[in-house]
Amino acid sequence: MSSPQKIIFITAKEMQQCFNSILLETGFTEDKAERLAAAFTQNSLDGIYTHGVNRFPRFIEYTNKGYVKKDAEPSLKSKNNGVEQWDGNSGPGILNAMIATNQSTKLADEFGIGCVALSNTNHWMRGGAYGWQAAKAGYVFIGFTNTIANMPAHGAIDTRLGNNPLVLALPYNNTSIVLDMAMSQYSFGSMELSAMKNESLQVYGGYDAEGILTKDPAAIIRSQRPLPVGYWKGAGLSLLLDLLASVLSAGSSTHEISKRNIEYGLSQVFMSINIKQLPNYFSIPGLIESIITDYKQSVPESENAWISYPGERVLNNRKRNAENGIPVIQLVWDEILALNK
Amino acid sequence: MSSPQKIIFITAKEMQQCFNSILLETGFTEDKAERLAAAFTQNSLDGIYTHGVNRFPRFIEYTNKGYVKKDAEPSLKSKNNGVEQWDGNSGPGILNAMIATNQSTKLADEFGIGCVALSNTNHWMRGGAYGWQAAKAGYVFIGFTNTIANMPAHGAIDTRLGNNPLVLALPYNNTSIVLDMAMSQYSFGSMELSAMKNESLQVYGGYDAEGILTKDPAAIIRSQRPLPVGYWKGAGLSLLLDLLASVLSAGSSTHEISKRNIEYGLSQVFMSINIKQLPNYFSIPGLIESIITDYKQSVPESENAWISYPGERVLNNRKRNAENGIPVIQLVWDEILALNK
Repeated sequence: MSSPQKIIFITAKEMQQCFNSILLETGFTEDKAERLAAAFTQNSLDGIYTHGVNRFPRFIEYTNKGYVKKDAEPSLKSKNNGVEQWDGNSGPGILNAMIATNQSTKLADEFGIGCVALSNTNHWMRGGAYGWQAAKAGYVFIGFTNTIANMPAHGAIDTRLGNNPLVLALPYNNTSIVLDMAMSQYSFGSMELSAMKNESLQVYGGYDAEGILTKDPAAIIRSQRPLPVGYWKGAGLSLLLDLLASVLSAGSSTHEISKRNIEYGLSQVFMSINIKQLPNYFSIPGLIESIITDYKQSVPESENAWISYPGERVLNNRKRNAENGIPVIQLVWDEILALNK
Repeated sequence: MSSPQKIIFITAKEMQQCFNSILLETGFTEDKAERLAAAFTQNSLDGIYTHGVNRFPRFIEYTNKGYVKKDAEPSLKSKNNGVEQWDGNSGPGILNAMIATNQSTKLADEFGIGCVALSNTNHWMRGGAYGWQAAKAGYVFIGFTNTIANMPAHGAIDTRLGNNPLVLALPYNNTSIVLDMAMSQYSFGSMELSAMKNESLQVYGGYDAEGILTKDPAAIIRSQRPLPVGYWKGAGLSLLLDLLASVLSAGSSTHEISKRNIEYGLSQVFMSINIKQLPNYFSIPGLIESIITDYKQSVPESENAWISYPGERVLNNRKRNAENGIPVIQLVWDEILALNK
């Protein structure tokens, strides 16, 4: 357990150039390659390695296998004032989600609030990215996606629910507060990382094969029974997000996606609210500051406890990785370099 | 621990008449008394006793003390197409929330999606009620409220967050699927009930005075450290819901509310989406049915496990309580009868 998990540091510039080169080689247009390389690099810079550098090879694989159609663009299916349905046409999930987010902000400009429901799209990688995008542009954002089944219902042993990430965001202090929350207590990506390091999870992450709650990531990976956030509550929220995403987009549900075995053809929802038109617009920064200031005054349970708001850790990662380079598992980087023919 | 917790059964009709009589005596108009009595009774009939019959005496107390203004009506503060801000004017939270829900559906008729942000309102009692209301009228609904601080941030020991319930709903099969989810694993109401019965919680519900996770409800009530759903995740979602509710409504944050020590002057958000105008409207029931059918085919972990969807338990309670009467703690009913002079 030493050299395979060796960490090396790659600058954002080098990573982005490498991604860009591979994307061009894979057949993406210059414009699409550039935007995708930037997004995968930003996710890594922000510390979301599972949906950045670690996931890049699978994105290339899915593109080569045709699950992701490299030339596809999303198209409008229906429009009812502030609510639009778009077809992702199996295009790259990141680009489709960026376009859908942007479109939801345009609808918010026109109608106060906008909702874009996107069917037939692909994994958006890091949901938080669209929260950052909308909040940076000055909007309140609510978005969610469904996924392939990867989590049992509460009280069940087989996986019928997705972990269906939910994103909430708003602008704050020249940056953003962004919650990016999957409905499983831990992602399989992070449990695999803990298992590789022989580390125990901080809290229960699922059930072992005997149905006992456990902090052992390897046992949960074996049983395929990750724990929904808050047991019945996260399971219920996951079900509702899948229902809403597939109903509003006229797209595939987790159930339909799971029949394909490979995760593609997802359903997503992007909602933006225009706060610039609110009469209290100019007092919003002060209101947010008062909430965050109070929150940060929480009495920590120990010296090591860090009371952070959603998105704050990302800012720290971004700064540190910009200074020191992005930490990458040597094996992962070797795999990526091998794609760069 | 026997007679004080004795359960008696009251018919919905008797309960509603009793509530109505007390509300009239308290000074509500006939119309308001009727709607409030119906709502408190429906919540009880549906099995949400903590925000039905058990809470009724406190509602009367808050009205008598002037925290709830019995004659107040909500008023429009600002409008930007599909987004409206309303002032609850300290009126009864149930009536304000019913009006706000209805208004969000009207906005959804006009703009596809509608958002009503309500400031200066009072406890809406049972958030799910507004999900049922909107879904019954044929809309997808997303709503949330802030509360007084009653939950610590993850890693903190003092209460700075509300448990800020989130509601998601949609129509289903002549009824509705309704998620009504507070951000604490258990409400204090349900922990108090378990403590009275000397029952242990099913899963960790918070920390004891030593900071150890526990299933002992009395220990959590003493420490005032209930567990956020999914630890850092539910805490983060709670913070975001408070931020969004207070920003969008120009209302009080949990921090501001908590300075008053008494829970009044809350901020809430009600969003409805018009699904009747979607091109896939007529295929929605089949889509939902396929999701629920698959979900219900989950393999239960034990014979006792019941894989229910959010809102399903309510339907069972409603049927059972309509047949057998609403179970009420004798002490609670005595207290209510004493109000009925």
